[in-house]
Amino acid sequence: MSLLTLLVVAATAAQPVDLVVRNGTVVTVDASRRVVAHGAVAVDGGRIAAVGTEAEVDAQFRGKEVLDAAGGIVMPGLVNAHTHAAMVLFRGVADDLKLMEWLQKYIFPAEKINVTAEFVRAGTRLAALEMIRSGTTTFVDMYYFEDQVAEACKEAGLRGVLGSSLIEFPAPDSKTIPEALAYAERFLKRWGNDPLVVPAVAPHSTYLASPETLKAARALADRYRAPILIHLSESSDEQAQVRERYGRTPTEQLQQLGILRRGVLGAHGIWLTPSDRAILKEAGVGIAHCPQSNMKLSSGTAPVREMLAEGMRLGLGTDGAASNNDLDMFEEMLTAAFLAKHTSGDPTVAPAAAVLEMATLGGARALGMEDRIGSLEPGKRADLVVVGLDEPRLHPLYDPVSHLVYVAKGADVRHVVVEGRVIMRDRHVLTLDEKAVVAEADRRRDQVRRSLAH
Amino acid sequence: MSLLTLLVVAATAAQPVDLVVRNGTVVTVDASRRVVAHGAVAVDGGRIAAVGTEAEVDAQFRGKEVLDAAGGIVMPGLVNAHTHAAMVLFRGVADDLKLMEWLQKYIFPAEKINVTAEFVRAGTRLAALEMIRSGTTTFVDMYYFEDQVAEACKEAGLRGVLGSSLIEFPAPDSKTIPEALAYAERFLKRWGNDPLVVPAVAPHSTYLASPETLKAARALADRYRAPILIHLSESSDEQAQVRERYGRTPTEQLQQLGILRRGVLGAHGIWLTPSDRAILKEAGVGIAHCPQSNMKLSSGTAPVREMLAEGMRLGLGTDGAASNNDLDMFEEMLTAAFLAKHTSGDPTVAPAAAVLEMATLGGARALGMEDRIGSLEPGKRADLVVVGLDEPRLHPLYDPVSHLVYVAKGADVRHVVVEGRVIMRDRHVLTLDEKAVVAEADRRRDQVRRSLAH
Repeated sequence: MSLLTLLVVAATAAQPVDLVVRNGTVVTVDASRRVVAHGAVAVDGGRIAAVGTEAEVDAQFRGKEVLDAAGGIVMPGLVNAHTHAAMVLFRGVADDLKLMEWLQKYIFPAEKINVTAEFVRAGTRLAALEMIRSGTTTFVDMYYFEDQVAEACKEAGLRGVLGSSLIEFPAPDSKTIPEALAYAERFLKRWGNDPLVVPAVAPHSTYLASPETLKAARALADRYRAPILIHLSESSDEQAQVRERYGRTPTEQLQQLGILRRGVLGAHGIWLTPSDRAILKEAGVGIAHCPQSNMKLSSGTAPVREMLAEGMRLGLGTDGAASNNDLDMFEEMLTAAFLAKHTSGDPTVAPAAAVLEMATLGGARALGMEDRIGSLEPGKRADLVVVGLDEPRLHPLYDPVSHLVYVAKGADVRHVVVEGRVIMRDRHVLTLDEKAVVAEADRRRDQVRRSLAH
Repeated sequence: MSLLTLLVVAATAAQPVDLVVRNGTVVTVDASRRVVAHGAVAVDGGRIAAVGTEAEVDAQFRGKEVLDAAGGIVMPGLVNAHTHAAMVLFRGVADDLKLMEWLQKYIFPAEKINVTAEFVRAGTRLAALEMIRSGTTTFVDMYYFEDQVAEACKEAGLRGVLGSSLIEFPAPDSKTIPEALAYAERFLKRWGNDPLVVPAVAPHSTYLASPETLKAARALADRYRAPILIHLSESSDEQAQVRERYGRTPTEQLQQLGILRRGVLGAHGIWLTPSDRAILKEAGVGIAHCPQSNMKLSSGTAPVREMLAEGMRLGLGTDGAASNNDLDMFEEMLTAAFLAKHTSGDPTVAPAAAVLEMATLGGARALGMEDRIGSLEPGKRADLVVVGLDEPRLHPLYDPVSHLVYVAKGADVRHVVVEGRVIMRDRHVLTLDEKAVVAEADRRRDQVRRSLAH
């Protein structure tokens, strides 16, 4: 909204809107990276109506509902650009192992025995609680039984870009690729017009999805105008395997098959070559950087300095909780900043503002959704988070952006708003029955434990 | 306490003790790494009287005070093996800069203008609040006006190993080395018999303390049986400078001067050579690993895999909040585990149990205090922390040790006990006036800001 528009609106009487968030410092992550002291955000019809000082917003708008930021920080909701939400039920089931041993002795067997539609629903509910409580408003998911993920996402009131998996072995929800494609198509049809759920197609990777599967995924995504989510250059093994099989890098393979364009999101991107990055940038493809998972599994060093310098569409993700072991995007921001400085040997790399952007607008750009989410600007969907400054740790405060990246924790999040709806107020999640969700997760643990004892 | 002793005690009537902590899973970090489900800890006269199942402890002891762990985890208090507590007042004042620019343009000028006895008292109180609220029970400090640090430490009820600084330039508390030595001697005399404060001598480093100063520090430490705290091999510049000046590594320089023995704690240890490590290990010297500060300042890669394999006395520290930007040891554990895996390329390095040890018993060993603190064992000082499992993020729980390192956060700490005294109960710090401490920190911010504007 231009200043002129503001003045025109102000000349009329204060307009009633659904919600006004007030009494906070607003970190907008807009094009000028504006930070508004004594700021407020007006929300109406699920969208941001105005961002300004309290005085400016009060002169124009009267909130039917008011959310008090209590002197804290109002920021765009965090975008978790890569996770497998339901895997929270496997968090800590096995740690400190080599990737292949971890996958083959623990994760794959545990998934094979335990993952049902009900398991995924229970796991996604738990993940949703955790994500809301740590300030995530949009999550990008790749898993099985994605219908249940979408149902839990809607129930929680979160925004989700949810990918139905295509993988070249019998999966919990589909025994064959044709079955998986049929599932994916039903999924795209069912959720195509949802205000919160963006259904997507998720071929696992270039090593666990054949060229035919990848082409079928592309066709499906085109037909339903859906995003494609895929693991991309996560491990050196993947890199070697794909090169051996096809004589190309995973990115070149995707390019060759005509998969790449805006709306494709590759997770990890650790082993991307400079030429891969040029291809991806040109095509408008996004990358989800997952520093904690990458460190825990010793997967390698993502070229974050380079991707930032090249202006790639770079988001931030937690990966699944089996390799993290949680879904806390504040911790992920901290780790992204520290890791990029450490690996580049240059403490000026990945400054706080760039990392905050990665976790918000960067994730939106990586998804091709920057016109809708990722910053606090009039016209965008009203996804926002209020961070309280109650903890002594958050004092003194010299720079709110520095604090958001280097000091704030998930537990400092006080209120969460998605699509204009308050889904957490004063740390009470309003959309899910917390006790019941946790109790069910605990019951599932006993089942998982028994299954691994065999 | 042996089983036999237990049985003999149990045969008599239940003995009254000061405190029983019950209804938790006790992670002892004792020699057998025992984890006691449905456990309890009896505390008397500031020491641990017994650790066992609730049934075992109830049969022997009756607590005058009872602390309910509410199904959470009872663990040894965390030992922050290297910090500059009062620097919390500079947190976030400048980030994302090269070390020398950061120090010379911001930190040193800010210290020169602002650091007074009252500033240090205010900063240490704020740091103490933050440390208590995130589960630290012992902190190792190197700063100026260490008398005020000690007073705030005692007021907070924390245990501190507090080093009075010797540095080869005019410092806020002493203009010359003779003045600083006199200050240090008064400090050692004043605090020598305190149950919570262990006074120490803190020559800054081999590049900012001359051979004469280092020898004087050794003499003082010998006279008062005090620890020596020093920065050791933090940067490649330090390494080069010391080699150029003395033809030796910093460790060789300390060895040559006769400084090294048990009770010496070197911070960082990033650039230690294999031969340095052998010298330090042989002498019983401890190292405080500070992964977050090292990453944020791009200081290099500490040889953690090697130090763990060699059985060095290895603790974990946050460093000052100006380069962290907080004093959260849970986050430091997570980062230590992830960074060691990342830099070694091996996810089996620094498993959760080793990292938990680093943050507790390892810190105690690094200080030469493993007979008094670092684990939950009868006879040791009663420094313990109760971690609540209220957050959905901590469910399901397969392995409490994994959760303590990979999932728990400072904000999950519910109760804190130091020397048998409850200093935080249900997240209320009982020893300091939280509001007054935070308000004073905020006032100091305005002063620091003005000073940096010049």
